[in-house]
Amino acid sequence: MTDHWNGRRPAGRIAYVNGRYMQHGDAGVHVEDRGLQLGDAVYEVCRIENGHLLDEEEHLDRLERSLGEIEMAMPMRRGALKLVMAETVRRNHLRDGLLYLQVTRGALKRDHPIPERAPKPTLIMTARGMDEAALARRHADGISVIVCPDQRWGRCDIKTTQLLANLLAKTAARRAGAFEAWLIDGDGFVTEGTSTNVWIVDGDGRVITRDLSHAILPGVTRRVILEAAAEAQIPVVERRFTLAEALSAREAFMSSATGAAIPVTSIDGKKIGDGKPGPLTRRVAELYARRSQERLS
Amino acid sequence: MTDHWNGRRPAGRIAYVNGRYMQHGDAGVHVEDRGLQLGDAVYEVCRIENGHLLDEEEHLDRLERSLGEIEMAMPMRRGALKLVMAETVRRNHLRDGLLYLQVTRGALKRDHPIPERAPKPTLIMTARGMDEAALARRHADGISVIVCPDQRWGRCDIKTTQLLANLLAKTAARRAGAFEAWLIDGDGFVTEGTSTNVWIVDGDGRVITRDLSHAILPGVTRRVILEAAAEAQIPVVERRFTLAEALSAREAFMSSATGAAIPVTSIDGKKIGDGKPGPLTRRVAELYARRSQERLS
Repeated sequence: MTDHWNGRRPAGRIAYVNGRYMQHGDAGVHVEDRGLQLGDAVYEVCRIENGHLLDEEEHLDRLERSLGEIEMAMPMRRGALKLVMAETVRRNHLRDGLLYLQVTRGALKRDHPIPERAPKPTLIMTARGMDEAALARRHADGISVIVCPDQRWGRCDIKTTQLLANLLAKTAARRAGAFEAWLIDGDGFVTEGTSTNVWIVDGDGRVITRDLSHAILPGVTRRVILEAAAEAQIPVVERRFTLAEALSAREAFMSSATGAAIPVTSIDGKKIGDGKPGPLTRRVAELYARRSQERLS
Repeated sequence: MTDHWNGRRPAGRIAYVNGRYMQHGDAGVHVEDRGLQLGDAVYEVCRIENGHLLDEEEHLDRLERSLGEIEMAMPMRRGALKLVMAETVRRNHLRDGLLYLQVTRGALKRDHPIPERAPKPTLIMTARGMDEAALARRHADGISVIVCPDQRWGRCDIKTTQLLANLLAKTAARRAGAFEAWLIDGDGFVTEGTSTNVWIVDGDGRVITRDLSHAILPGVTRRVILEAAAEAQIPVVERRFTLAEALSAREAFMSSATGAAIPVTSIDGKKIGDGKPGPLTRRVAELYARRSQERLS
């Protein structure tokens, strides 16, 4: 397995695969795993802060929902899953970083239909540090986005590993010197970023984010922000908005497990507001951070 | 690897992975393979008949095109690739069956964008027998299809492993007692089957198949049939057609590498023509078979 790895071998990284903890370089799945051959797999990414998993229950709720939408059960009881998640973080000696969790339908002689008898699923977890300084810079300075047509499939509410459209748009963004791409549907409305939900603040100080449907992922951080904003009596509207609305917004930001309320200071080279992170964006980020602190303490 | 395999261990099956032939049960990829984590992979399936690979050059042409569309090069020179394909067939002692070939962008620390320096790709080949009697029955008796909304992404012309929409529709078909699902786009036109191209014969004896675009896979067998039909002066029109046209067609059939011109005798429970395989479908199947014979001899 190790000889297929590109780049520096990550010394000391530990992965979990189907009941075993092992050296990262040795962690593999079968070539006939349905996740590899058919995209028959879902995943979650959880933020690790101070050794704790943020919004763990919400991520597991969404995992269970994603699995249910493709007719799969959770790979083990939730209590056991949480133990493995915590153990994966512990074995990687991580204080801050990311936990990655993927479930596939399992390895089986290749055939398209869902097997009549559920095969033994494949459960993978890995964990790693993040560039925390870069994340802090994105929070402080904001980031630029470009826009791309949304080419994804009709069920973006399921968190599947079918991410080719996302990664092609993200690649276009990076080549254009931007950090993220916002995706535009056939009617000219913004759906979401390639790995983030989208938010704008209108001229009346209302926070607007795309409403849930098959067109976007029900973001865990999105949901926590909505709850925190409601408690703080910040007016929030869940509805679709056009690119033109975004361009004339007072503020814009994006949310994901790896960065709550990251300011978006330009879209396709056009400044949003005064081109600096906005006060409401900062307030939402603070509300999210405070809420996370409260939950962990 | 073997303990994750579901079902009977395929004794004697040999897989090729990145330069090595190995026991099928031992063939794996890394958990951070971009094919597994991001759907960053394309594939081909070739029919093996009498120990030969049908339409091999056309499959390699399409592989090269798919790779190019996601900014990847062929994993090795074409001559070398053909040697590995032939050797994989030989080591599996197959006279008739299927060769499966997958190329992923390789194993790399997880990050969405296409890496600036191309990583070493992952190349996988497996081969296996088919149920030849079942295939002969499908040719002789025809099959039933149901219709489903086409939920796939905007670049179905690239043969990626992102097949979840396809397999969900195929599952619905099998549960309804049908063999395949035909996918209907937002305008009411048939795009293709979940793993087959679609064809009908109208009242004037014209053969109609959906024209190429981002909405369908450029089928290798489709192309060979088009060439064979042109040589035989059978009138063929490449254009989209509606479900209503299909239901009132004189004949219908589907094509794929695993079965050229399989008669479709009913759609959503409604008989096509007299509900039996049609004469033009049979003629096309014969033309394809004759052409394959000529190429191999």
